[in-house]
Amino acid sequence: MLHGTCYENLRVLCKSVGHRLSGTPAAAKAVEWGRKAMIDAGADNVWLQPVNVPYWYRGKESLELKIAGKYQKVPALSLGNSQGTGGKTLEAEVVMVNNYDEYKGLPDDAVKGKIVFFNYRFRQDFINSFEGYGDAVNYRWNSPNVAVKRGAAGVIIRSMSTGEDDFPHTGSMHYEDTTAAKLPEMAVGNYTADALAKACKAGKVTAKMTSECKMMGMRPSYNVIGELKGTEVPEKFITVGGHLDSWDVGEGAHDDGAGCAQSIEVIRTLKAIGYKPRYTIRAVLFMNEENGNKGGWAYLDSANARNEQHILAMESDAGGFSPRGIGLEMSEKQKEHIRKYRDLFMPYNVYDFEKEEGGVDISPLHNKKNVPAAGLLPDSQRYFDYHHTANDVFETVNHRELKLGAATMAQFIYLICEHGLE
Amino acid sequence: MLHGTCYENLRVLCKSVGHRLSGTPAAAKAVEWGRKAMIDAGADNVWLQPVNVPYWYRGKESLELKIAGKYQKVPALSLGNSQGTGGKTLEAEVVMVNNYDEYKGLPDDAVKGKIVFFNYRFRQDFINSFEGYGDAVNYRWNSPNVAVKRGAAGVIIRSMSTGEDDFPHTGSMHYEDTTAAKLPEMAVGNYTADALAKACKAGKVTAKMTSECKMMGMRPSYNVIGELKGTEVPEKFITVGGHLDSWDVGEGAHDDGAGCAQSIEVIRTLKAIGYKPRYTIRAVLFMNEENGNKGGWAYLDSANARNEQHILAMESDAGGFSPRGIGLEMSEKQKEHIRKYRDLFMPYNVYDFEKEEGGVDISPLHNKKNVPAAGLLPDSQRYFDYHHTANDVFETVNHRELKLGAATMAQFIYLICEHGLE
Repeated sequence: MLHGTCYENLRVLCKSVGHRLSGTPAAAKAVEWGRKAMIDAGADNVWLQPVNVPYWYRGKESLELKIAGKYQKVPALSLGNSQGTGGKTLEAEVVMVNNYDEYKGLPDDAVKGKIVFFNYRFRQDFINSFEGYGDAVNYRWNSPNVAVKRGAAGVIIRSMSTGEDDFPHTGSMHYEDTTAAKLPEMAVGNYTADALAKACKAGKVTAKMTSECKMMGMRPSYNVIGELKGTEVPEKFITVGGHLDSWDVGEGAHDDGAGCAQSIEVIRTLKAIGYKPRYTIRAVLFMNEENGNKGGWAYLDSANARNEQHILAMESDAGGFSPRGIGLEMSEKQKEHIRKYRDLFMPYNVYDFEKEEGGVDISPLHNKKNVPAAGLLPDSQRYFDYHHTANDVFETVNHRELKLGAATMAQFIYLICEHGLE
Repeated sequence: MLHGTCYENLRVLCKSVGHRLSGTPAAAKAVEWGRKAMIDAGADNVWLQPVNVPYWYRGKESLELKIAGKYQKVPALSLGNSQGTGGKTLEAEVVMVNNYDEYKGLPDDAVKGKIVFFNYRFRQDFINSFEGYGDAVNYRWNSPNVAVKRGAAGVIIRSMSTGEDDFPHTGSMHYEDTTAAKLPEMAVGNYTADALAKACKAGKVTAKMTSECKMMGMRPSYNVIGELKGTEVPEKFITVGGHLDSWDVGEGAHDDGAGCAQSIEVIRTLKAIGYKPRYTIRAVLFMNEENGNKGGWAYLDSANARNEQHILAMESDAGGFSPRGIGLEMSEKQKEHIRKYRDLFMPYNVYDFEKEEGGVDISPLHNKKNVPAAGLLPDSQRYFDYHHTANDVFETVNHRELKLGAATMAQFIYLICEHGLE
């Protein structure tokens, strides 16, 4: 809380690099930022691990809605990985459904040639907002696949958003049938969704979608890795990380500049207290979590190729908010072992060791190599206000909350390194 | 989380009334806001309880520091209840100390005629920021009394602030010796304090303080009270409240518009679910917490005059942040009784029933009438960034965090009303 540098590191990332979608020059600049920050933190070794990443290009885009007889431009974002309208304008009537059940109830001719507006609301009654996200996110990920089967022309979705505002939220989608048409998909913010829903109930609404977005193949990039070399068993590893890429709006401050700055802080803290770890501790800034997770897979491939043994992997990718707990994906026996440390975390207001949460970047290691996984659990109330929006900027991060999360991670990594998992 | 009106109520208070220091026309407007909001919430009775409050007038003020040979105006706020320079300019050399021990070590002639800069830093190493506040606040409250004894001319303090910014924080001070000179006292933000400290170390610094602030006697005002009438034992009361007055900067959003809006929400929620309380439940918007606590005393006086029996008083006055727990000031037996409900609060991430915390407004009831007191415990990390500053505005309040606090309060009041405290 007194000597932490993660807040200042995050400021530099957000303000000198900004957003950094995989494959962009900004992502390359972020790699350089990470490399330098790892060295400054005192890592014994710092290196770049090659990763091939998909490059999605947004280009120009606009959404206009004709409500009460007049077209008006509204804030909107194409969803990541989606194919746009090729720069042409798609004009069609909007048909609204509140969920997939309502959609199924529509006659086919109500869908064909239309732009389907999936007006599914993020459920604010979930106390843990990640449950709300899990509940809603399929409308972003899958709606074009649902819509194309009945001949729709395009898709608009209500953003995966808890925000009392009009920020549209981008995020990844996918086309499941590569032989089918790739429908354009755009997200609107809550206020625009409210207005559009009201207009659709009142009468006929048409929309003009124009977008240039497209996938543009693979590009070379890197995971950034910094190590504190183990003194007793250096060939065994404990990984702590976040992801370095972000969506191409805002500054990727909470998602996931915070997790990167915190992971670097773990190295800095342990080095600053003169800690000599038994095992090698690695901070990893993964590339391409947002639209491919190629960094997580490259890290697994490298671990397999080098025949590395991994004791634990931890991730921070839920925002730089006040920590509440640590999620655990591992055996019950290992969970029970960790829960014995609960009283050591209580003075830091960290109490929740009950949730099953790791992280996307470390999921290949966990799923394919059975490495126990852990995820920092910050307070979730504000995350989906900012997530994947132009408002995910440095100013929304509080320095004490960010540092407290980093301290929690450092403490956890220390305990695992000292006492193992059995 | 779905039907709450506290966020919208708070918006109206912040944006149509704004800050509302006791005795000002804005405070009177806030009383009217509260009365109307209580009626809209469905309270059975709503009335105004007369309170005489001190009126402190800020007027114009400025602080200039001569660093590197040149005077520059810096952001500064006179402390509440303090006497200014009568509109004249006080120019004097600045002598800096980091704490009272250093101050004691100064020779008398280093203080006499000088402006003493108490550069005590808010201790960011306390995880609970209220401990940091408790540790530091005497420098705001008492420094003029310490300084006048050795013939100082004025006082500058580093704000009671966790902020990574330059907002000065106002707040109350007092003059303990009414026969001594009333030294002017101003607070500067962290960045200005850093610059001033650096300059004082490097050489001679002079300052010009100019301020018009003064106490201007007493004025009539009100506590706002809304009741849900008890159906079985209406002559016994459970109180839940916050304070309606604020400092005269910002919008008093976290301090304590949040607590007011949440207390009204308790009434609205219990009414909306059709709850018929055994005891009478009162939401009270107290006047004058900030610089006199006259509302709390008037509420006690009225309770005594009417021979009221009070089962419990709860306050929310620690910001509209994500709730963590409920502080308890009561017997150990009563605490144990309440801690049995812990599992009912865990799904809302409310787990901490260990702290001794009530609230200033309910402290007369607790101290003089031995009424068990409880205080909502929100996450404390951000509070002292905003507290008593121009930045304590509606935009810094998150709707989910605010509502979750209100729901926690409603649940707690319900449990006490249903099951008592034994």
